Amino acid sequence: MHLNGLSKKKVMAELKRIQKQDQRYEDGKILSSMCTKPLPMAEKAYRLFLSSNLGDSGLFPGSARLEKEAINQLAQLLHGQNCVGFLVSGGTEANLMALLTARNMAQTSQPEVVLPESAHFSFTKICSMLNLKPVYAGLDSSFKVDSSLVEKCVNKNTVAIVGTAGTSELGAVDPIEELSTLALKHDVWLHVDAAFGGLVLPFLENAECKFDFTLDAVKSMTVDPHKMGMAAIPTGGIIFKESKALDFIKTETSYLTDPYQYTFVGTRPGAAAASTWAVFRSLGIDGFKKTVSKCMKTTQLLADGLCEAGFKLVVKPTLNIVAFRSVKETKHLAEKLWEDGWFVSYIPRYDCIRIVVMPHVNKQHALAFLKDAVAD
Amino acid sequence: MHLNGLSKKKVMAELKRIQKQDQRYEDGKILSSMCTKPLPMAEKAYRLFLSSNLGDSGLFPGSARLEKEAINQLAQLLHGQNCVGFLVSGGTEANLMALLTARNMAQTSQPEVVLPESAHFSFTKICSMLNLKPVYAGLDSSFKVDSSLVEKCVNKNTVAIVGTAGTSELGAVDPIEELSTLALKHDVWLHVDAAFGGLVLPFLENAECKFDFTLDAVKSMTVDPHKMGMAAIPTGGIIFKESKALDFIKTETSYLTDPYQYTFVGTRPGAAAASTWAVFRSLGIDGFKKTVSKCMKTTQLLADGLCEAGFKLVVKPTLNIVAFRSVKETKHLAEKLWEDGWFVSYIPRYDCIRIVVMPHVNKQHALAFLKDAVAD
Repeated sequence: MHLNGLSKKKVMAELKRIQKQDQRYEDGKILSSMCTKPLPMAEKAYRLFLSSNLGDSGLFPGSARLEKEAINQLAQLLHGQNCVGFLVSGGTEANLMALLTARNMAQTSQPEVVLPESAHFSFTKICSMLNLKPVYAGLDSSFKVDSSLVEKCVNKNTVAIVGTAGTSELGAVDPIEELSTLALKHDVWLHVDAAFGGLVLPFLENAECKFDFTLDAVKSMTVDPHKMGMAAIPTGGIIFKESKALDFIKTETSYLTDPYQYTFVGTRPGAAAASTWAVFRSLGIDGFKKTVSKCMKTTQLLADGLCEAGFKLVVKPTLNIVAFRSVKETKHLAEKLWEDGWFVSYIPRYDCIRIVVMPHVNKQHALAFLKDAVAD
Repeated sequence: MHLNGLSKKKVMAELKRIQKQDQRYEDGKILSSMCTKPLPMAEKAYRLFLSSNLGDSGLFPGSARLEKEAINQLAQLLHGQNCVGFLVSGGTEANLMALLTARNMAQTSQPEVVLPESAHFSFTKICSMLNLKPVYAGLDSSFKVDSSLVEKCVNKNTVAIVGTAGTSELGAVDPIEELSTLALKHDVWLHVDAAFGGLVLPFLENAECKFDFTLDAVKSMTVDPHKMGMAAIPTGGIIFKESKALDFIKTETSYLTDPYQYTFVGTRPGAAAASTWAVFRSLGIDGFKKTVSKCMKTTQLLADGLCEAGFKLVVKPTLNIVAFRSVKETKHLAEKLWEDGWFVSYIPRYDCIRIVVMPHVNKQHALAFLKDAVAD
């Protein structure tokens, strides 16, 4: 640290200079992220509540109310009734809270969790932390977990089954309905990681699959407003079907206005609740449907264009994610696209290039990308 | 969620109405929080970087640089050389990362951690999650951990010893130098939770105690910019003495620009780095010294005033925290103060009222509080 401070003007000038190194979502080159530019409304709301702390809700009952209302709206979207939940730091904390609850509730000495091979890498962190043995079930030809393989992995040590509604790599939606049947049969906690898909699937036209609290065995869901919810980072969401779940993860506090804490993180930004609430209130279901529809149209445009140009889709897109392969070396194509300034993900596991068509990606960006992909 | 959205103007009006239920730091009634109103500079910087994600640093190299520089400045303040670290969601995640590293490094089948009885409640969460057995060591008459009792708790299963530099309840600073000697002797990881004190002690006049990386055995430290660093929530800090620690907590990512992640949380706000960096750059060491000096003067004013009025201090303040008892029932006094609108903590463990004199608490607030405390 310098001995003396600098004027506000100089600090801001330095920050703006350094910020030029960051990519900007609005330039349309970021095709690899599940985050996006927050809605202007989300930014305004975040700013207004910047001092607030949800971890000390007696001081900030207004913010706590916004959190509760946002959670209720998420739960309602996911067909939950009398659910409880929290806005947390992101999908990792949400998934942690779900598996911690399941582990603590089961009280097994050698706890295991059955995960799809396509589960998010946050589960690797969580299993290592919680001393949960991850048991991976294979996928079917459309990259959804094969529920018959899941069943083979279930045993007396299984404390939870996880399904994903929108995998990070391919946007695949696991057969949650089949997992629910299994989970009921074996009396095991079913957690649905809908961090990404939870704010896409409810707004899709012609969505058929059941993936949420409509299904009896679904006990907890992750759904992140800072992904397709267009709220500011950090805003994850965890929703539990029943409030009794909280008994298994509560910690006594010693000096706060709340006697117990349920989230992993203690001090939590009230601004995250305000920004989520503001997005929900200003868009409504209609606004979300329009955004999702736009993303899906751009996804289709990309998928069609890539196919026409001779690339091969890994799978027909279910959500706003396109994954494709080159007839030649795909990794090499990815490198060329990176050189052209496109931020795409190369996924070694599937030897594919993967694009997430977030709301900041418009038709013009997609067409420019196609042009470069074809030229490379 | 409503079917239709509302205009921005109406949403903002609703948010402002709801916000009226929240307390405001600037009113000086919040005497129970270790957070404070972020500096205006921190707010501006946060806003500028609101879209940025430190969990995908290839997209945001400018933000990543701000994080690195902020961590380097924290490490330097704490006399670390070649340290590594991260800005994380808060003290809980920071403490988790330290204990996870120690646990994974030790590879003991029945891991234990020795904690002061006064350790923060986040360690309860962490121990439960990590299957770490917490072994509590008692305190001396000044509410610091008794290092001879700590030594009695150390055994072959001990993976870490924790000391606190600024306990949440009383602001006590454990004898970290003695703990360091012990940790070296028993070859155990020493973690210092300086979430609060780490940005107070370096700026205190006449601070004598050693508590940081000056001491050989200190392997990791928690220090939170969103407490006395006056940065915006959520900004905790974890600093490791040696980069090899990271090998024990790394997770492979599958689609991000960073091949590995070390933090628990995946998507992390770049705005937190910008706001911390901005505070450090605009205040400098001199600015921090002035703020800390002001807090300590107000602390002394409160302590003196309370003593003169016949209240009894639990302990002479080391940091900007005052804890006191009434000659009559202290809990009853706390209730009366709550009725008067003062947010103070009542700490059952010590049967005391505890006040944190954060930068938003000025002399006028302190005098008004004293008046009410005496009248009650």
